[in-house]
Amino acid sequence: MTVPILEESKVDVLVIGAGPAGLFCANGLARAGVSVRIVDKTPEKVAAGQADGLQPRTLEVLQSYGLAERVFREGTQMHTAAFYNPSPNGGVEPVNKTADITGPSARYPFEVTLHQGNIESLFLDSMSSMGVGVDRPVTPISLEISKDEAELQDSQSYPVKVLLKHLRDEALNEVVYARFVVGADGAHSWVRKALGISMEGEQTDSIWGVLDIQPETDFPDVRRKCVVHSLNGTCGVIPREDDMVRLYIQLDDNAVLKDDGRLDKANTTPEKILQVGQNILRPYKMETKVFYWWTVYTVGQRVAAKYSAHDRVFIAGDACHTHSPKAGQGMNASMNDTHNIIWKLVYVLRGWADMSLLKTYEDERRKYAQKLIEFDKMFAALVVKKPKTDDYQEGVTHEEFLRAFQTFGEFTSGIGIHYGPSAIVNPEYQSVAKRLTIGKRILPHVFVCAADGRPYEIHDLLPADTRFKVLVFAGNTSQEAQMQRVREFADMLTRKDAFFERYGKSDPSRLFNLLIISSTSVDGTDHVGLTKAFRSHWSKVFVDDRTMYGHSGGNGYEEYGIDHATGAVVVVRPDGYVGMATPLKGVSELDAYFSGFMRSILLLVQTEAVRDVCNVKDFLCAFDSDIDGEETLV
Amino acid sequence: MTVPILEESKVDVLVIGAGPAGLFCANGLARAGVSVRIVDKTPEKVAAGQADGLQPRTLEVLQSYGLAERVFREGTQMHTAAFYNPSPNGGVEPVNKTADITGPSARYPFEVTLHQGNIESLFLDSMSSMGVGVDRPVTPISLEISKDEAELQDSQSYPVKVLLKHLRDEALNEVVYARFVVGADGAHSWVRKALGISMEGEQTDSIWGVLDIQPETDFPDVRRKCVVHSLNGTCGVIPREDDMVRLYIQLDDNAVLKDDGRLDKANTTPEKILQVGQNILRPYKMETKVFYWWTVYTVGQRVAAKYSAHDRVFIAGDACHTHSPKAGQGMNASMNDTHNIIWKLVYVLRGWADMSLLKTYEDERRKYAQKLIEFDKMFAALVVKKPKTDDYQEGVTHEEFLRAFQTFGEFTSGIGIHYGPSAIVNPEYQSVAKRLTIGKRILPHVFVCAADGRPYEIHDLLPADTRFKVLVFAGNTSQEAQMQRVREFADMLTRKDAFFERYGKSDPSRLFNLLIISSTSVDGTDHVGLTKAFRSHWSKVFVDDRTMYGHSGGNGYEEYGIDHATGAVVVVRPDGYVGMATPLKGVSELDAYFSGFMRSILLLVQTEAVRDVCNVKDFLCAFDSDIDGEETLV
Repeated sequence: MTVPILEESKVDVLVIGAGPAGLFCANGLARAGVSVRIVDKTPEKVAAGQADGLQPRTLEVLQSYGLAERVFREGTQMHTAAFYNPSPNGGVEPVNKTADITGPSARYPFEVTLHQGNIESLFLDSMSSMGVGVDRPVTPISLEISKDEAELQDSQSYPVKVLLKHLRDEALNEVVYARFVVGADGAHSWVRKALGISMEGEQTDSIWGVLDIQPETDFPDVRRKCVVHSLNGTCGVIPREDDMVRLYIQLDDNAVLKDDGRLDKANTTPEKILQVGQNILRPYKMETKVFYWWTVYTVGQRVAAKYSAHDRVFIAGDACHTHSPKAGQGMNASMNDTHNIIWKLVYVLRGWADMSLLKTYEDERRKYAQKLIEFDKMFAALVVKKPKTDDYQEGVTHEEFLRAFQTFGEFTSGIGIHYGPSAIVNPEYQSVAKRLTIGKRILPHVFVCAADGRPYEIHDLLPADTRFKVLVFAGNTSQEAQMQRVREFADMLTRKDAFFERYGKSDPSRLFNLLIISSTSVDGTDHVGLTKAFRSHWSKVFVDDRTMYGHSGGNGYEEYGIDHATGAVVVVRPDGYVGMATPLKGVSELDAYFSGFMRSILLLVQTEAVRDVCNVKDFLCAFDSDIDGEETLV
Repeated sequence: MTVPILEESKVDVLVIGAGPAGLFCANGLARAGVSVRIVDKTPEKVAAGQADGLQPRTLEVLQSYGLAERVFREGTQMHTAAFYNPSPNGGVEPVNKTADITGPSARYPFEVTLHQGNIESLFLDSMSSMGVGVDRPVTPISLEISKDEAELQDSQSYPVKVLLKHLRDEALNEVVYARFVVGADGAHSWVRKALGISMEGEQTDSIWGVLDIQPETDFPDVRRKCVVHSLNGTCGVIPREDDMVRLYIQLDDNAVLKDDGRLDKANTTPEKILQVGQNILRPYKMETKVFYWWTVYTVGQRVAAKYSAHDRVFIAGDACHTHSPKAGQGMNASMNDTHNIIWKLVYVLRGWADMSLLKTYEDERRKYAQKLIEFDKMFAALVVKKPKTDDYQEGVTHEEFLRAFQTFGEFTSGIGIHYGPSAIVNPEYQSVAKRLTIGKRILPHVFVCAADGRPYEIHDLLPADTRFKVLVFAGNTSQEAQMQRVREFADMLTRKDAFFERYGKSDPSRLFNLLIISSTSVDGTDHVGLTKAFRSHWSKVFVDDRTMYGHSGGNGYEEYGIDHATGAVVVVRPDGYVGMATPLKGVSELDAYFSGFMRSILLLVQTEAVRDVCNVKDFLCAFDSDIDGEETLV
């Protein structure tokens, strides 16, 4: 018998599970300069099948990490949807076509399908450029959290002890001491079980087959997302790469079950599933030579009772929520879970924020998951409901279905995610930016850089660089009275006792990126004066004007519901969500907002431990390079 | 004494000179699967200074090679221009601002400044992924062209013998036998001299200093392109990366000259040049701590008398034309020279086209260079002319200058390049596509893919993949009579004796990419019927319709001046220029066009040598992947 070798190491964050949620998390933490380790029990990344739909909000989020360009290059775009209902002549017929996405404010108003393996490669390649890889196959076998309250409250302690087993080398076990652990280990999460967290909700009796095929077909909408409601059941069509199509086929009574009523996958064949699909899609032909991937599943709709233990171990992704794939939400919700927690962990690890900031993760993401499941139940029920016909009056009409599809479009697109009031979401001054919902992601819009006339999509000015973005909508700065107000505000903001100095004495640009947006035209803006007032850089001053050829820009104050004359200040969180707004004079309001969760850096810069994790200057400069300048605020 | 070792090798194309023109050429040829060798006499690529402005047409061309994304990521964009004239109080004052680019049809209506070394890296990295690098420092020492007429006429022969000397290894000389040679070796071109080609034109007496600095300045338009006309001379401002600015400063009487009247660079200092600039820019301050790069030059405006010898050795770039940098044309004209010749060399090397096709290179590019110099003379004269004041009535007014700036804007942007009638430009049926000028690049426009509703910029559908693009504007295909006409046209096009079969029997998609664009809406198009009629792929059928949210698309027939009902056929050359147009029935016109320079592949596919260079299938598939499909034409 071999004696197991026990290696010991320390890490800021240990991520367990290298699916989309875990990889997104590890990549984001590594970019922020956090020491991170990620392990997975499988020997290889996903090769085929699985999740593959990226929703508009997820695309915006990936763009904020600089990863969307590659997704657009590699993925298939889904711009339109088509609906089929029973035809009077038997079989089905097309009813109508709509935009695939209901969410006019989406920067990218479409979905992208991309094989999960490629999505994982996005993160793996990005991480690899920072020297971070996945340790696999490695599985956790025990997890202990310290019971010492003082240790738990000290963000610089290592209160979590995880024993890891290397599956390729039986002799090698390992102890990792982590400040934080993120369990992103899927629907059957080991971490969740280790924490004793239960899943709330139930399994439905709806059973589905899924096929990835290159179809031989005369079905005219095979390159759109389709929902085909027939009298023989429902079929969903999702176009994919290489002329492939994914079919979701309602099996129900056609499913092969074991004696205990559970699915009998061993005795199910893709040929049999396709046969059921062909019966739904009549009179259209749907054949294939090859099944690239297939599966069967029952729909479970459950949410974890808790998302963390002591705010030291968190669960994310499928470990927290399972639902039907109909609304294409699984992978998107999972990646947005870890997008939500990354900056919070970074702030706590850098010693900038209180431990209490971490509580907002469960608050925000569990509520979202509950709403998601609520919607999923309603939508999944509509999907399988028989269509209304003369003989079946209680069926669902196309109009009802379309209304549900569109009403929840903003929600399924991810654009509608709305975080409720908390320490980091303060809607008190919602009225100063009426059309930017505080708690929702900031609306995309093009503003023009005053110094060089270049148009910028504001989303590109707000990358996921862990900084808060303070957007000073300076109003009509061509009026001297307003310009005077702006100068006074700038003075208050940058003077000794304001939060700018308190939270970032040595270099506020580590925490804040301040952008100034005047409501005047390029010609009417004294951009040199504005730059000087804020002791800032030319690249930070914008106007709400059209570009020279009128291709883009303009009307932004209107779109955001901000007064052209008097302006407003809008704070965007590091994850792109609007955290608060205030009138232009509201330095004390800004101060109150940040002091609700931030620690004063003044008191902390002397601590050696903190100085270590604060070493993020290179990281911030890397981000700033895309706008050619660095703040000179002192 | 070492005995020189003579190595011998053969290559399709030897490129001499690895500046922008030569690298562009080698990269384009390598992408097309041509065996190419590139040598340069300098040991390293450019480190600082030199050319760095990319014009809108050059950006479009780079995009057609898949290289623009990186340019946009790395470069500084110049969207606006500002003009300064003498102020009544002495010194200068701003007069007005305009768009930097006059050329509303430009897909990218701005210039990009990017250091020449980075531009060279674009090509070096792309080439390196295909296993091609620059041999350096290597210089040619002799060049002989065969005098055997039969050998010269045989595109598969190697009639050019070049002796190369390796400058790092004195012992290593080398003989290269090339089918073709491209001399892109700069203003002092060795190749041009070896061919005995003279430069026509003259040196002016205008002398300029150039400085790259990070300015300390209160000049408000330091991030725009500026032309400052003062009573003390003229200064140009070009914003660059890292807050740098390039200043072009008119020296003339302030220049240090040698006794023979030539520039004395050894006794010129950047401090002195800056002093002249400061005098022009008064009352604004312009200081710097560091000069990153600087030079002085006199303006020469010359064009080579010939661009080739026996259509076997060509010259390109600065080897053919020198002019002032004022209009920012040098590097752009150079890269567009080799863009013009790449596909022609490829067609001749593959045995597809007659040797006569190569004559169109000089015809097209020399005429363009002559126009460029004509413009350059006029513009350069205006730039240095003293501004009109009360005391100097014969001076140039701002209005005159601005008119010249804008009138020639389409020309300087590269958008206005217009190739005259030739074997590859046939304007006979200009009337069927009134607003697409035959001989100019095709206008950018967004069309919508009928099968999936995805919008595509047509430029992205016409990559520099060496194929001719046959755009079938099918007219109103919701009318059965028109649909019948389209079907007849498709039959004629694909039947046994038509050019489609003659030039590409085994696989027409190697030579042609056929796209079908209906004038109807997404809903009104039978895209399955159109796909079948042309035996094509779903991804090749488009409609002239808005996208679902109206973000883009629509009105393309109008913009191109094509009749909505009856349509037209437009042929776009592999380099993106419109080659011809014809009514929808015009198969014989298409046939006549292609037989004017193409050889019938039917007669050639049996030749072993040709089969070798025809092996481009992988290459074509690589291109097609971006629209998810491959033609199924047989």
